[in-house]
Amino acid sequence: MTTLQILLCAGTHGNEINAPWLLDHWERDKGLINTFGLNIIPLKTNPKAIDLGKRYLNRDLNRCFQKELINSNDIRDYEVLRAKEILKAYGPKGDNPCQIAFDLHSTTASMGSSIVMYGRRPSDLALASLIQSSLGLPIYLHEGDVAQQGFLVESWPCGLVFEIGPVPQGNLSAIILEKNRLILEKTFQMIQAILTEKITFPESLIVHRHIRSIDYPRNSNGDLIGYIHPKIQGNDWHPINKETPIFIIGKNQFIKYDGESGLIPVFVNEAAYIEKNIAMTLTKREVWPFNNSWGKELYELVDLVKNN
Amino acid sequence: MTTLQILLCAGTHGNEINAPWLLDHWERDKGLINTFGLNIIPLKTNPKAIDLGKRYLNRDLNRCFQKELINSNDIRDYEVLRAKEILKAYGPKGDNPCQIAFDLHSTTASMGSSIVMYGRRPSDLALASLIQSSLGLPIYLHEGDVAQQGFLVESWPCGLVFEIGPVPQGNLSAIILEKNRLILEKTFQMIQAILTEKITFPESLIVHRHIRSIDYPRNSNGDLIGYIHPKIQGNDWHPINKETPIFIIGKNQFIKYDGESGLIPVFVNEAAYIEKNIAMTLTKREVWPFNNSWGKELYELVDLVKNN
Repeated sequence: MTTLQILLCAGTHGNEINAPWLLDHWERDKGLINTFGLNIIPLKTNPKAIDLGKRYLNRDLNRCFQKELINSNDIRDYEVLRAKEILKAYGPKGDNPCQIAFDLHSTTASMGSSIVMYGRRPSDLALASLIQSSLGLPIYLHEGDVAQQGFLVESWPCGLVFEIGPVPQGNLSAIILEKNRLILEKTFQMIQAILTEKITFPESLIVHRHIRSIDYPRNSNGDLIGYIHPKIQGNDWHPINKETPIFIIGKNQFIKYDGESGLIPVFVNEAAYIEKNIAMTLTKREVWPFNNSWGKELYELVDLVKNN
Repeated sequence: MTTLQILLCAGTHGNEINAPWLLDHWERDKGLINTFGLNIIPLKTNPKAIDLGKRYLNRDLNRCFQKELINSNDIRDYEVLRAKEILKAYGPKGDNPCQIAFDLHSTTASMGSSIVMYGRRPSDLALASLIQSSLGLPIYLHEGDVAQQGFLVESWPCGLVFEIGPVPQGNLSAIILEKNRLILEKTFQMIQAILTEKITFPESLIVHRHIRSIDYPRNSNGDLIGYIHPKIQGNDWHPINKETPIFIIGKNQFIKYDGESGLIPVFVNEAAYIEKNIAMTLTKREVWPFNNSWGKELYELVDLVKNN
């Protein structure tokens, strides 16, 4: 028997209600998600925000997993306290240590199902490659963005976000729930395969590498004075070219894209990102040959647990 | 010159951000909406909720226009105070009286653009007929629902809600904004026609009359234990029949519709209605011959102003 433990997080943003609902439903109906014998610890990460149907109480929990905050004596912010609590309980060195973490999110953007990866950690790359080769999910690689730091899954040796949309905040959706369920089952099946057999990794993976984010047009008060052009709205994952109108600011008045052609927008008009000054994030599609050291590290992470 | 004044309300729910944004944008760009010479008073009805991006602070402003609340000495709830304030300023007997009110709303339901009418007031019926015959909008007739009372537009002699979706809460949408703008222009054009010429009313109007609302399946704590079936989700305005599965409560476990066949759901999975115990509202489609007394009352309302 392995002692590998996987933390399955939902409701890190309290107004993304599908994933916490799936966990509740799973508790009522044990057959809902096949875990393939793995030890899965389901956790509603921001229960107070879930109860209130709000993204967060004091600050975005999914930006609180920064060393400075975790090591600080901050006792004002519920989410900082909660981040400390979660790490103490289920962190890689916690009371009930987990080695892999998944964090389930939803978006109002028309992104379908995707994997979000933070930086280029070899075991993340290995696991994401397996999931992508099996389910075809696009990967958004978040890196080099100093404005957005401290994501939950970064606190575990291996951790990915599953991001599913479009769905309004506070809205239960049969499609989103089922997509979540299927991704989890497939992911658990693959991790179980790593534990029990010699698996074959794909030859390459495709990433959409973070380049930069674009804010909405605003006036000097910070109020929005424009909105996403309908040709961009709903067209996440489709490349845009120089001179494409991306915002409407008045009758027949547009702001055109003046950056590098071929970059690919994601998180287009995500409702929660207005406050983060992000109207969309531009990415570059890259095909990376699979590096065997990634798979080795993932195996080592799992073996380390097996050998304990 | 007429002294007819029309109150144009937006942001009655602070998280429905498209309409208030349209008003702001109109202030910056006076040519954005053609008023056809009418006196339009734009009003952001729940400014504090708009600032916070919340539906309301203390209670739903669009349920506060009930006589008991308006006449009460309640000073606790911001929205009750705000309702009194709005009526004092712009009510039919207010300091700056308006005779017609429009209230712009958005929904997460896939309802497209529609008119919501409260009860069967003749001038509402006349005006809604004109708008329907011109733009083809469906009309949801809210009546006989004791659980939902006190809607803003009911406080004016003539008043309609324009409800546009689907759009997530807190999400600016080019399509929603443009639909709002077009409906307003067309409506203003028709009211101007009433003031200046003899217009022809249509021979009939089609209403979707409120029958009853259905709640989500819940446990004894009130928590949701099921969600809308994907064949119902997004299918507002399409009749459902007996035995159609309407909720999913588990793997291959459904709750089937057991009511009258042919009723038509609206507000399917509206995010804001979970707290109101409404998963969808069932309506009956009816074709009503136009009654000339409706048109007469609308003309009288407008003439009364003209003759003042």
